[in-house]
Amino acid sequence: MDYAAASLQLHERLGGKLEIISRAPVTNREELSLAYTPGVAQPCLEIQKDPAKSFSLTRRWNTVAVVTDGSAVLGLGDIGPEAGMPVMEGKCVLFKAFGGVDAIPLCIRTQDVDEIVRTIELLQGSFGGINLEDIAAPRCFEIERRLKEVCDIPVFHDDQHGTAVVVLAALFNALRVVGKDLKDCVAAFSGAGAAGVAIARLLRHVGVRDILLCDRQGILHGEDASLSPDKQVLTSFTNRDNRSGTIAEALRDADIFIGVSAPGVVTQDMVRSMSPGAVVFAMANPVPEIMPELALAAGAAVVGTGRSDFPNQINNVLAFPGIFRGALDVRAGEINDAMKIAAARAIAALVSPEELSADHILPMAFDPRLGQAVAEAVAKAARETGAARI
Amino acid sequence: MDYAAASLQLHERLGGKLEIISRAPVTNREELSLAYTPGVAQPCLEIQKDPAKSFSLTRRWNTVAVVTDGSAVLGLGDIGPEAGMPVMEGKCVLFKAFGGVDAIPLCIRTQDVDEIVRTIELLQGSFGGINLEDIAAPRCFEIERRLKEVCDIPVFHDDQHGTAVVVLAALFNALRVVGKDLKDCVAAFSGAGAAGVAIARLLRHVGVRDILLCDRQGILHGEDASLSPDKQVLTSFTNRDNRSGTIAEALRDADIFIGVSAPGVVTQDMVRSMSPGAVVFAMANPVPEIMPELALAAGAAVVGTGRSDFPNQINNVLAFPGIFRGALDVRAGEINDAMKIAAARAIAALVSPEELSADHILPMAFDPRLGQAVAEAVAKAARETGAARI
Repeated sequence: MDYAAASLQLHERLGGKLEIISRAPVTNREELSLAYTPGVAQPCLEIQKDPAKSFSLTRRWNTVAVVTDGSAVLGLGDIGPEAGMPVMEGKCVLFKAFGGVDAIPLCIRTQDVDEIVRTIELLQGSFGGINLEDIAAPRCFEIERRLKEVCDIPVFHDDQHGTAVVVLAALFNALRVVGKDLKDCVAAFSGAGAAGVAIARLLRHVGVRDILLCDRQGILHGEDASLSPDKQVLTSFTNRDNRSGTIAEALRDADIFIGVSAPGVVTQDMVRSMSPGAVVFAMANPVPEIMPELALAAGAAVVGTGRSDFPNQINNVLAFPGIFRGALDVRAGEINDAMKIAAARAIAALVSPEELSADHILPMAFDPRLGQAVAEAVAKAARETGAARI
Repeated sequence: MDYAAASLQLHERLGGKLEIISRAPVTNREELSLAYTPGVAQPCLEIQKDPAKSFSLTRRWNTVAVVTDGSAVLGLGDIGPEAGMPVMEGKCVLFKAFGGVDAIPLCIRTQDVDEIVRTIELLQGSFGGINLEDIAAPRCFEIERRLKEVCDIPVFHDDQHGTAVVVLAALFNALRVVGKDLKDCVAAFSGAGAAGVAIARLLRHVGVRDILLCDRQGILHGEDASLSPDKQVLTSFTNRDNRSGTIAEALRDADIFIGVSAPGVVTQDMVRSMSPGAVVFAMANPVPEIMPELALAAGAAVVGTGRSDFPNQINNVLAFPGIFRGALDVRAGEINDAMKIAAARAIAALVSPEELSADHILPMAFDPRLGQAVAEAVAKAARETGAARI
């Protein structure tokens, strides 16, 4: 199927994928007086007295803004805020379909960090959460960090954390397949951008033995004075033996490969040099770091990609709708690491021991249990960590 | 009926009056590939090539942001952005019910003009129009003026221009009832705030003979050095005989009273001093400048208020849904005076000569012809004035 032509046709026919509808009838004067003036003054006054009531008397409790500057849209790059809108609308469609969340796209016409942060900060009172999307690294790190300081609602950069959650879920099950423990594993990364860094941090949090992060110059190591401050920070929790070298050096004896970089950067020889029972997640899109059949032929035990036409698609849609559903349900002030790890465990747990195999480490996106299972796990973790406010 | 209690109950039960729904099915992998990746890349690329396609490939063509800073909400005053949200959601409900417009509230947590302007400027690519709402004067004037300079979509402050359009519509028909011509009439105003100024400008535009604007200090006149620059500007097109004095002086021999001020500031003696066939629009809410029965007893020929429990309710809902419907339909870059006057004429024309009377100068808000009639008139005026882009 020619997805490009068919999708363009769909978008032309629909004229946009979202719609805002009214939940309050206004078919006569009485109804108008309740949904609008004069009656509406009363809920206003209630919120003025207690701002938390904005979560029960308006739709704020269920509404998330999907925010982008259009600087890193899919693999298309910096195409601008308006051109990013079809992706953002699509994201909002998935929020609704898989999480029951009302999501609205906000495309910001600037790439200035201060302005992006301030814009969202000023609008936060209209929303229950902020989902950052397709903002280029390293800007996205600073934007997220600063927004977390100034917002009293969850701020979640899905390209980082949604990806990290699904990778972790996939890894939990892949290691069950190969019979290894995370704490004994070394993970080699190709790609130290937004997704790579978030995955690395989450793997560190769950106790992976060591992490080797590679950018185009090879393994990041602390003695490399040429590293940017952003990357220097990463060496504080990775590469504990202070190794240097190319991606090939990083993969030697590694248990796990995490690819969030570019097509074809991993060879069969590199996979052959990995530890037995190697797990290879080659997520460059649409062409992976190594094609699954080549990785398997070179001895990889489990292979995942970002593509829907191969087994084990590592797809954010498994995570973000349920994560926000759970966070909104308990009015969480943040989405913390415990909530992300709980989400990953819930996703992994949907694959039963009988179903689990090298070709089946993740549930289907359309698994009807998924959104609710993730939401409940996230809500529970939010309560346990004090992030929940109801 | 106790509207306050009933409205609060409605808001608690609904948990917000809006909902965002998906227009694209995502029930299987194929549909997901069209609404989202990989297919969605194609509409993105089309918009990148031609940004105007954001109006056909996304919902932008039908979406309006309802923006407030919460500084002048209803008669409640400066209650803040979150507390203003029930009104904004209500406004969005009316946009949908009466104009078929998708409207989303954005409550901004600042009252700084620069920040409000910049926030909306940066977000304009997500919307087809901006409706400013319940922003205090004189800030609202500068915000609107500056936004019109930086936005390529219509910016409309409904408290000003929506009110002005409905007042003008009411006036067209009131003058038919009393048999006077606008060009022979003097209009005396109580209130020189957002609504008063916009009404005055529109009346000037249609050729009212003279306008006397009164604030709490009395008639604005050009020789009063104590006037703020904002008010000084108003004397350039009002008060051509340079009269001074109180509101009582302004009303003497006036043909029209426009009240957008405070309860009870007009006495029966003042109405008695007006020209025969006086038109009195006393729109302070909930208590008018003079109660209708008192005005009528003092000789007023036609009386209108802002209230639904008296005849001739001057209600913005008659105007804004159709105005934006018309502007969106032709992708207007602005909502200009010709479009506003066309809207007023269309509203007035819905009252047939047989129906027209001192107690019936405006159509019902629920008149099924209303939205479409206003939209068509506005679209036509947009085409005639070059504001239309399709």
